[in-house]
Amino acid sequence: MAEELGHEGDIDDTGNAALGRTPFKRSESHFKDRITADGRDGWTVEPGRYRLVVSRACPWASRAVISRRLLGLEDALSMAIADPIQDDRSWRFTLDPDGRDPVLGIRFLGEAYEAREPGHPDGVSVPAIVDVPSGRLVTNDYQQLTLDLATEWTALHRPGAPDLYPERLRDEIDEVMRDVYEDVNNGVYRAGFATGQEEYEEACAGLFRRLELLSRRLADRRYLVGDTVTEADIRLFTTLVRFDAVYHGHFKCNRWKLTEDPVLWGYARDLFQTPGFGDTVDFDHIKRHYYRVHTGINPSGIVPLGPDTAGWLTPHGREDLGGRPFGDGTPPGPEVRGEEVPPSGRAAPQP
Amino acid sequence: MAEELGHEGDIDDTGNAALGRTPFKRSESHFKDRITADGRDGWTVEPGRYRLVVSRACPWASRAVISRRLLGLEDALSMAIADPIQDDRSWRFTLDPDGRDPVLGIRFLGEAYEAREPGHPDGVSVPAIVDVPSGRLVTNDYQQLTLDLATEWTALHRPGAPDLYPERLRDEIDEVMRDVYEDVNNGVYRAGFATGQEEYEEACAGLFRRLELLSRRLADRRYLVGDTVTEADIRLFTTLVRFDAVYHGHFKCNRWKLTEDPVLWGYARDLFQTPGFGDTVDFDHIKRHYYRVHTGINPSGIVPLGPDTAGWLTPHGREDLGGRPFGDGTPPGPEVRGEEVPPSGRAAPQP
Repeated sequence: MAEELGHEGDIDDTGNAALGRTPFKRSESHFKDRITADGRDGWTVEPGRYRLVVSRACPWASRAVISRRLLGLEDALSMAIADPIQDDRSWRFTLDPDGRDPVLGIRFLGEAYEAREPGHPDGVSVPAIVDVPSGRLVTNDYQQLTLDLATEWTALHRPGAPDLYPERLRDEIDEVMRDVYEDVNNGVYRAGFATGQEEYEEACAGLFRRLELLSRRLADRRYLVGDTVTEADIRLFTTLVRFDAVYHGHFKCNRWKLTEDPVLWGYARDLFQTPGFGDTVDFDHIKRHYYRVHTGINPSGIVPLGPDTAGWLTPHGREDLGGRPFGDGTPPGPEVRGEEVPPSGRAAPQP
Repeated sequence: MAEELGHEGDIDDTGNAALGRTPFKRSESHFKDRITADGRDGWTVEPGRYRLVVSRACPWASRAVISRRLLGLEDALSMAIADPIQDDRSWRFTLDPDGRDPVLGIRFLGEAYEAREPGHPDGVSVPAIVDVPSGRLVTNDYQQLTLDLATEWTALHRPGAPDLYPERLRDEIDEVMRDVYEDVNNGVYRAGFATGQEEYEEACAGLFRRLELLSRRLADRRYLVGDTVTEADIRLFTTLVRFDAVYHGHFKCNRWKLTEDPVLWGYARDLFQTPGFGDTVDFDHIKRHYYRVHTGINPSGIVPLGPDTAGWLTPHGREDLGGRPFGDGTPPGPEVRGEEVPPSGRAAPQP
């Protein structure tokens, strides 16, 4: 997560900035090299050469997890899943045998950052792509990374992969994503890590104003732009799927729950039930990360029992709006073995 | 509030016990004298002699606020409303001119406790009844206080006052109230001030188990016991009306919102719209108290914008279940002048 580990010193990994007087400001990524078909930054798209490092807790990393699934890049671009709870040594591979990523051989993602730039000044964030042969970080640019998966990695896409960033719709997609980023993706963080009442209220009010506009937009169209799933939907989804689980209570985004807005709740469930979306979501990782890492806003570290996640599996009726999720393409197959979300994290009725 | 000010040292006034390892345990009241018709404890029911001190934030004090309204005791028993935010000098009369209660002439409720027992070992809690002539505290026994208003103050009740604790139903009322106290009234505090994951989960699971039982009980009966409003309804109401506003997020009681359970939400709205209930509720006091005083669980002191309270005023349809809210009696008249909840605290659509 870009905000979790002190990028530019704006926020430390426990959200303790909420106790100071520094307004929350998301850092830009420090490492912005692009992996492209023509290799113009020195990094050429190649199967098996790179490793995507994510946390399933993190909305920014989850964009990449979903894109990779939808595009069928699992074999071409392997994936490391970090422990949802990082410590002051950065994101950890404690879910793997011996606490080491089996491909990169490192215990902490920070080691790949150090290999790239010793003493680099910024935080260690996910998503990150690491060059396997050298063990060096290539990019942690969460804004560009998925666009490149969609447009530069095309030679390695599966047959039937959807076009997530169609050229003729890019202006509209970019515009929607800009608003969604400012008010929603980042808006929840500005509310949750606000250092004062006024800053919080401005962010929270802006968030719900935007959600109401989005709800109106989505009332009679199945997807945000065009009639198929695009990058814009992926980016809205990764915030919506965390909304009731963490943003509503932990970040005080509590005017209403997602489940209380019939349009957005239907839209989010529709995507959740689309192969490649919900099957990447681990509610256990999400809840444990937010509630245990941000001790500045949750000192006890207690993780709430609620909310019930079974509702994610209920009928949404959005098919009636038409639309073709994958356009001329097809849905992705089942998850690659070893990458399935464990039962502890899946949407299910509460005991 | 019984828990807010260090009774028995179990919890300090900021909820910081949540950081230690001491499980939350509600203290018994220290001052248990009763004001009775026969004056057997030395305190006889008399008009104008006593002053009830409350905070509208506090669910325990709010029981007394509601009972006093329903029974028409406003003239006989005057009421002081403390600032929702107490400090280390105890509950403050900062809402009154010059920061002094105009009847008792004191700035802090603790002064009446000191007058009763200098150096008393326990916390200063509301509700409290103070003897006006001597300025001494009589009782802070939140469990007995309202029962005495219903049964000992009868000579001063208004014409048409309901019987809130009917003799023939007392066993059933007591039994219901025992369960509601343990799992609901106090259960939310045990969840919110839990010092560890297991303690929290036990309290939260018990709370929702009990709410589900209550929801089933109330599906086909309008009130908890008999067919009229009783003390049991008052005690459940004071927790339910705070549920979505503070317990759901701040205390992590988040399996579902009250608004998500059609029966309990209908039941709570029915009471809210009954004269003497909703007209005593100040959501502004409630939210500011919990979110600003408990810095141990909300270090930033930021008060959330949500949830929208307009829903409290919507139709509930519970009249169809029959029942007679006031039995053979009548509803209370409007609030006494000077005791109206200000617009800032009333249920209303959000701006």
